[in-house]
Amino acid sequence: MLTLYHFPLSPYSRKVRLSLAEKRIECQLVEERYWERDPDFLRRNPAGKVPVLKVDGVFMAESAAICEWIEEVYPDPPLMPTTPAERAEVRRLVSWFDDKFHKEVTSNLLFERVNKKLMKQGYPESKNIKAGAQKIKFHLDYMAWLLDHRRWLAGNVMTLADFAAAAHLSSLDYISDVDWNRSENVKDWYAKIKSRPAFRSILADVVAGFPPPAHYADLDF
Amino acid sequence: MLTLYHFPLSPYSRKVRLSLAEKRIECQLVEERYWERDPDFLRRNPAGKVPVLKVDGVFMAESAAICEWIEEVYPDPPLMPTTPAERAEVRRLVSWFDDKFHKEVTSNLLFERVNKKLMKQGYPESKNIKAGAQKIKFHLDYMAWLLDHRRWLAGNVMTLADFAAAAHLSSLDYISDVDWNRSENVKDWYAKIKSRPAFRSILADVVAGFPPPAHYADLDF
Repeated sequence: MLTLYHFPLSPYSRKVRLSLAEKRIECQLVEERYWERDPDFLRRNPAGKVPVLKVDGVFMAESAAICEWIEEVYPDPPLMPTTPAERAEVRRLVSWFDDKFHKEVTSNLLFERVNKKLMKQGYPESKNIKAGAQKIKFHLDYMAWLLDHRRWLAGNVMTLADFAAAAHLSSLDYISDVDWNRSENVKDWYAKIKSRPAFRSILADVVAGFPPPAHYADLDF
Repeated sequence: MLTLYHFPLSPYSRKVRLSLAEKRIECQLVEERYWERDPDFLRRNPAGKVPVLKVDGVFMAESAAICEWIEEVYPDPPLMPTTPAERAEVRRLVSWFDDKFHKEVTSNLLFERVNKKLMKQGYPESKNIKAGAQKIKFHLDYMAWLLDHRRWLAGNVMTLADFAAAAHLSSLDYISDVDWNRSENVKDWYAKIKSRPAFRSILADVVAGFPPPAHYADLDF
């Protein structure tokens, strides 16, 4: 049995949870308040971040490494295409969301509105929230452009790139920071992902002190 | 023939250059002043970053994706071990350097001292330089701890993790920001990497306005 140390609204944890669930891999979830820097947790991952996956007593860190490991050990159903060039495109987009989108959008919105309060690190900075709200428009438009040319973000099959994007967007949707009316095809794409059985546990997440809006778990949003 | 759009001191470009050179893959290098956001370059990579690899007319972005592609298409000599668990450890460390080390060290030192001047983004912030100089000690100690237990950073064979680390450290060594006297085994490790043929082009790099110190290219530093 695998154990995943995670935090409900962490997009990196969500990406791993979606991969595990899509492949129907049983996994025990342990919520970790990673910012409290518990010494036991730091021994599991000296970087002090979630997610961390425990496999046969060994701890594995960094969501990119964990998702590649899952794909290698549990290849079915695949979340990576078969040719090296297609795989490069999936990995490019995973980095796009986990690096660029995170820096420009997620950290400006989710961190300011939720993490700062949880971590007792002061009040939201309105300058950052404004920047995140501005930048997400550019990213939604980029996704819309991709989805004009492809059925899924990285090509014609659903891949880890879709889960990486959905992990960030679902965390932001929890705090009502996604304008689903901006683009028809991004909304359609999210509706398809949201209705997958793998998404159920994500939609059931609740963080104390931050109740989700009604549309969050609604498949007809 | 491959073409790599890169910038000499970019650690992400260096990681890719080291992988290509170690595998003796011929590749044309094109220096890209990516911060000038040339429209042609943005078409190659909308994220506006180096490195970008051109393969048969197709552009590939994000160093993690490029390195995995290289490994899949040119598996010899391998820069990844064979078991999924060992591969996860390599990828964990690549993310450690490209994410955590970059944020805490490289961006505080290299960005402040070099990129800001090149990009005409103002003067170095001494608070950031101080933070970077402090944090690099922790990272060198972590590397020393790993190398107490292993021949190379991720295990007993040289991998992409070593190249990721050497890419960051060599860029910082170019601006004399690495204290090689802090740990004997980190110095020994770097001496081994530095003397590889794959490292030659890195040691020959020169950025106009920033001449490297004498020890930078010296194998007996």
